[in-house]
Amino acid sequence: MEQLTIVSEVMAALGRVLPGRRPIALHEPEFGGNEWQYVKNCLDSGWVSSAGDYISRFEHLLQDFTGAPHAVAVVNGTAALHMALLLAGVRPGDEVLTPSLCFVATANAISYCGGIPHFIESDSSTLGAGPAVLGEYLNDIARISGGVCVNHNTGRPLRAMIPMHTFGHPVAIEGFLELCERFRLALVEDAAESLGSYYGERHTGTFGLLGTLSFNGNKIVTTGGGGAILTSDSALAAQARHLTTTAKTNHRWTFSHDQVGYNYRMPNINAALGCAQIEQIAGFLDAKRRLAARYHQAFASVSGATLFSEPPGCRSNYWLNVLLLDHPSETILDALLQTTNEEGVMTRPAWKLMHQLPMYASCPRMPLPVAEGLSARLLNLPSSAVLGRDDGE
Amino acid sequence: MEQLTIVSEVMAALGRVLPGRRPIALHEPEFGGNEWQYVKNCLDSGWVSSAGDYISRFEHLLQDFTGAPHAVAVVNGTAALHMALLLAGVRPGDEVLTPSLCFVATANAISYCGGIPHFIESDSSTLGAGPAVLGEYLNDIARISGGVCVNHNTGRPLRAMIPMHTFGHPVAIEGFLELCERFRLALVEDAAESLGSYYGERHTGTFGLLGTLSFNGNKIVTTGGGGAILTSDSALAAQARHLTTTAKTNHRWTFSHDQVGYNYRMPNINAALGCAQIEQIAGFLDAKRRLAARYHQAFASVSGATLFSEPPGCRSNYWLNVLLLDHPSETILDALLQTTNEEGVMTRPAWKLMHQLPMYASCPRMPLPVAEGLSARLLNLPSSAVLGRDDGE
Repeated sequence: MEQLTIVSEVMAALGRVLPGRRPIALHEPEFGGNEWQYVKNCLDSGWVSSAGDYISRFEHLLQDFTGAPHAVAVVNGTAALHMALLLAGVRPGDEVLTPSLCFVATANAISYCGGIPHFIESDSSTLGAGPAVLGEYLNDIARISGGVCVNHNTGRPLRAMIPMHTFGHPVAIEGFLELCERFRLALVEDAAESLGSYYGERHTGTFGLLGTLSFNGNKIVTTGGGGAILTSDSALAAQARHLTTTAKTNHRWTFSHDQVGYNYRMPNINAALGCAQIEQIAGFLDAKRRLAARYHQAFASVSGATLFSEPPGCRSNYWLNVLLLDHPSETILDALLQTTNEEGVMTRPAWKLMHQLPMYASCPRMPLPVAEGLSARLLNLPSSAVLGRDDGE
Repeated sequence: MEQLTIVSEVMAALGRVLPGRRPIALHEPEFGGNEWQYVKNCLDSGWVSSAGDYISRFEHLLQDFTGAPHAVAVVNGTAALHMALLLAGVRPGDEVLTPSLCFVATANAISYCGGIPHFIESDSSTLGAGPAVLGEYLNDIARISGGVCVNHNTGRPLRAMIPMHTFGHPVAIEGFLELCERFRLALVEDAAESLGSYYGERHTGTFGLLGTLSFNGNKIVTTGGGGAILTSDSALAAQARHLTTTAKTNHRWTFSHDQVGYNYRMPNINAALGCAQIEQIAGFLDAKRRLAARYHQAFASVSGATLFSEPPGCRSNYWLNVLLLDHPSETILDALLQTTNEEGVMTRPAWKLMHQLPMYASCPRMPLPVAEGLSARLLNLPSSAVLGRDDGE
C-alpha cells in the first residue's frame, strides 16, 4: 500500500513539473549559442586537433568562471582525475580515500596510478563524504610516520583524499582541508558534476591542491567528451600540460620526451564547442535552479520522499535533482525506477556503491551504513536546463 | 663542402615540388567534403558525446575500408594501443617487443599495462622492424616454458610484439606472424600511420590479433583526436567496447561495472568529422601518391640522399615522405632541418630513439645499429595531400 501511494504521488508530482512530451531525458545538452559558429571556424582554420586557439580560449573561460588561476583542458573527466592523482603524488601501493557513493571513474583513476581506493562514508546532509566521521576513523587507523600518513592496518601510505561534490551539491570541503592538513594528505577535489556550484563564495574545485571537471554530454556544459584540471599551483599546471601532451620536450622539430606521458589533451574542435557552451552557463544555471524550485514545490506535499536541497551556505548547480525516500527501501525505489522509465521519464538510482563492485570488493573501507542507506533511498530526476524554462517543451 | 652541396641540392629539389607559399606544414588536414554537414547534424541532434549514430557509422566505414571484421572507435591512437595490449593479455611485469624507432605512444601504452618495452632493431628496407634479425635474437634469448615465452636473461614473460608500419610504409608483417606463432607471442599491429597502406592485397592492421589506427590532426584522416582498434575476433571486439565504456554492465538504469574500465570511447562529434573524412580517403591517397612520385622525380638527381620507396609487394599511403641520407650524418641532418624550417618548409627528423629516452634507457634491447643509423639519415618532408594536387596552393 505504502509503495503504491508513494509511486502514484511521485508520478503526480513529476506530472506537475514536467512538460507533456515523452521521453524526457535525465540530462540533455542545449546548443543555442555560438556552437556552430565556433565549430565551423575551427573546421575552416584546419586546426581541429591538439593544437589550436579554442583550447587556450576555453581554458581562460574556465579560469574566469571558476576563479582557478590555472585550468588545463583534457579529453575527459577520467583523464583529469588520473592526472590530478599522479600530480598529487599517488604512486603504486598508495591508498587514496574516496567515497563509496561515487561514479566509478574516481576509483578507476586511483587504479590507473597503481593505487588502492579506500572507501569512505557518506553524509546525508551533503550526499558527499562527511569530514567528522572520517576524522574519527583516521584517528583510529592513521599514523604519521616519517612525514607520511600510514594506514596501520595495511601498512600502506595514505597519500590523498578525493571528496566529490555529488550531483553538483557542494561537500563540506573546509572540513576536508583541515583533515588533509592534519593527516598530511593531498586534497584532490572531484568537481566533475559541480561546475557552477559554490561553497560559500568560492567555486567548487578550487579548494584542493588540484580539482577536476567533466564536460561529458550529460554535464551542465559539454564538449562532447572533455574534462579539465584546476589548480592554483603554476608548477603543477605546467606539469599537467606537459604530462597530458606526451611529456614532449620543447623543441621546434626534435621529438623527445622526458618521462612516461599521456595523450590526454582536449582536441580543438571539442574546445570550440566548450567555448560556446560556457558562454551560456549563467542561463543554464538559472534554468536549472528554477527547475529545482519547481520540483521542491511539487514534492512538498508528497509523503515519504523529499527533494534534496543544497547544503546551507552553498549554492548548487542542481546538476541532477535528487529525490530521497525518507526510509531506505529497495522495493519502493525499484517500483519508482520501473514506473518512471516505462512512462518515458528517465530516472536513475545512485551508482552501485564502489565497495560492492567485484574489482573493488576487497579494498579497505570504513563502515558505510549511511552510503548503503542512501543508495536505497536515492532517485535522480530529469534535470535538463530546458525543463526549467517557461517554454520547457 | 659535401654538407653545403647536399643542402643546396635538397632545397632545389624541394623547390621543384612545392608551391611558392610559405610556411608549408608537414601534414595538414583538408575538410572539403561533408564535414560541416555531419558536424552540424550532430549538434542539431544533441548527440555529441559517447553515444550517437556517427560512432557506429564511422566504425562501419572503417570496417568496409580496411576489411577488418570489427572496428572500435576510441579517443586516440594511444588509447587504442593501450586497450589492444590489455586485450592481448599484457600484464604487469611482461615484456613487449617494440621497435626503438617508433613514436613514444607505443612504449607508453606498454607502460600503462605495467609492461616493459623490449626494443627491437629496424630494417632499412621497410623502416620498420626486421623479422629475420629479430628471429635470430629470439633464438638466443627466448625459451618457451609452460606454454609461455620467457626472456631467459630477465626471467620475465615475453608476451607480445608490436611491429609498426613506419610513416605509412608496410612492415614485413608475414615474417612477424611466423615469429609470433613460433614464439607464442600475441601480435598487435601498430597501423596508426598506415590507413590506406596494403601489404599485398590486404590492409595493414588486419594481420595481427589486434591492430590500431590513429586519427590525430596530422594523420591521413582526422577526427580531431581519435583512434580505433581493429580485430577479426568478435569476443575481443566486444571486450574492447566494454573496456572502453567504463566496463558498465548492460542495464537500463543501474550503474554497475564488472572490472576496471576506461573512458576511451570516441565522442559522436569527432566521429561525425571522421565519417566525412573517410568518404574522401581515395582522393587523399591519390594526391599523396602523386606527391610522392613528384618527390621521387625531383630527388632522383640529388646525390647523397634518396627518397624512400614503398617496399616491394606493398602499397603505401606515403603518410610522411622520407628522405634518407646515403650515409648517417647528424651534421648534415641538422643543417637540412635548420635550413628547411627557417625557410618555412616544415621538416622533421625521426623520433628520438626510444632506448635513448631517460624513462626507457634501462629497458632490455637488441643491438640497434640500423635504428641508430636511420635516425642520423632520416628527414620527413611536407606530405599534405593538397601538395599532390595540380593546384597544390
